[in-house]
Amino acid sequence: MDIAVLGTGAVGRAIAARLDELGHHVVVGTRDPQATLARTGPDGMGNPPYAAWQGEHASVSLQTFGEAAAGAVVVVNATGGGATLEVLALAGADNLAGKVLVDIANPLDFSAGFPPTLSVKDTDSLGEQVQRTYPDSRVVKTLNTLNADLMVHPASLGEASTVFVSGEDAEAKALVTGLLESFGHEDVIDLGGIETARGAEMLLPVWLRLMGAFGHAKFNFKIVR
Amino acid sequence: MDIAVLGTGAVGRAIAARLDELGHHVVVGTRDPQATLARTGPDGMGNPPYAAWQGEHASVSLQTFGEAAAGAVVVVNATGGGATLEVLALAGADNLAGKVLVDIANPLDFSAGFPPTLSVKDTDSLGEQVQRTYPDSRVVKTLNTLNADLMVHPASLGEASTVFVSGEDAEAKALVTGLLESFGHEDVIDLGGIETARGAEMLLPVWLRLMGAFGHAKFNFKIVR
Repeated sequence: MDIAVLGTGAVGRAIAARLDELGHHVVVGTRDPQATLARTGPDGMGNPPYAAWQGEHASVSLQTFGEAAAGAVVVVNATGGGATLEVLALAGADNLAGKVLVDIANPLDFSAGFPPTLSVKDTDSLGEQVQRTYPDSRVVKTLNTLNADLMVHPASLGEASTVFVSGEDAEAKALVTGLLESFGHEDVIDLGGIETARGAEMLLPVWLRLMGAFGHAKFNFKIVR
Repeated sequence: MDIAVLGTGAVGRAIAARLDELGHHVVVGTRDPQATLARTGPDGMGNPPYAAWQGEHASVSLQTFGEAAAGAVVVVNATGGGATLEVLALAGADNLAGKVLVDIANPLDFSAGFPPTLSVKDTDSLGEQVQRTYPDSRVVKTLNTLNADLMVHPASLGEASTVFVSGEDAEAKALVTGLLESFGHEDVIDLGGIETARGAEMLLPVWLRLMGAFGHAKFNFKIVR
């Protein structure tokens, strides 16, 4: 499948590498490919330079957000929540129309320090904002509730855990559920329409506090029923 | 142990019955015991009249909020979030001082219909409001993340799941953890100080949507790690 992954951080790299490994044709999108490849130091989140990762994933090409989205049938938003709407605007509504748009971002607001709060919550969500802004795209909110490595290697926890999907389009959710299962997810819960992204995004505050209590991010929610 | 359970709804009854069964001396607190016992129809949430429940739990007495709290070493707030601060004021700061105050309530706001939103969240929580209002009490937030029956009979799920405690007082959290374990909880996670109640309370939005997706409330969060 032709898949664009928007974002070159830890989440984008993890998703792109796993999709590539699974045989998909993956293009990573960034603002300015030349600038991204020219960086030699760690990025703002401490990830090694993208060029080093690129060297280990030669079959994944790097293009602008718009070019990447244009050639894809599935577009994955793997940017930070604060950048999401700007990045999708750069990708372009025409390039996103009709596409399955997988939104992994969390609307975290770090302006008051750590732990961050949510810039939108409870009566709205980032997933809904994306769907409202791109009504011709089929938005599926998912994978925002666990860390990048577990998103794509859930079996490494040693016990099945849960991921969620929210969205208006049943076909798009089925396609995304299939991708999640190919990553190793055994329990994908369909929460309902894109409104239910409110619930999934509001898991972040307890996730952040669990990370604080454990001192690591190797954990996930499981819904026992 | 002398335990007061404030609230005569489904949560109050479940907690009181289980503590009674485990051999504690339990007093349920209500606004007006005569009026509560005189009701012959279901309450606002559809529970059968309290008097019927009382008949099956003869060793549990019913007193005013203040009387119940006065005689207890542990006070459980099992009222709705919208009533919590008023009920605790009726219980009285003197009767709550020095006590372990177990807060189970969720700050649900039903004013815009279902699903409810949270009247306080993200930058504050009901647990913190209670602790700020009663600085001489030792507030422990817990059990607000699962339904009344599972709070006290978690083994009925057939698989271990998780409950959380948040609070400033390590001794109070240890006491509450012991009570939770006596209910059958095998995984009690100490999230940290009372600030972490923000995380536990913000689980409600996804809990409500899971209930919608499943059509029942017999499920719980488990933190796989």
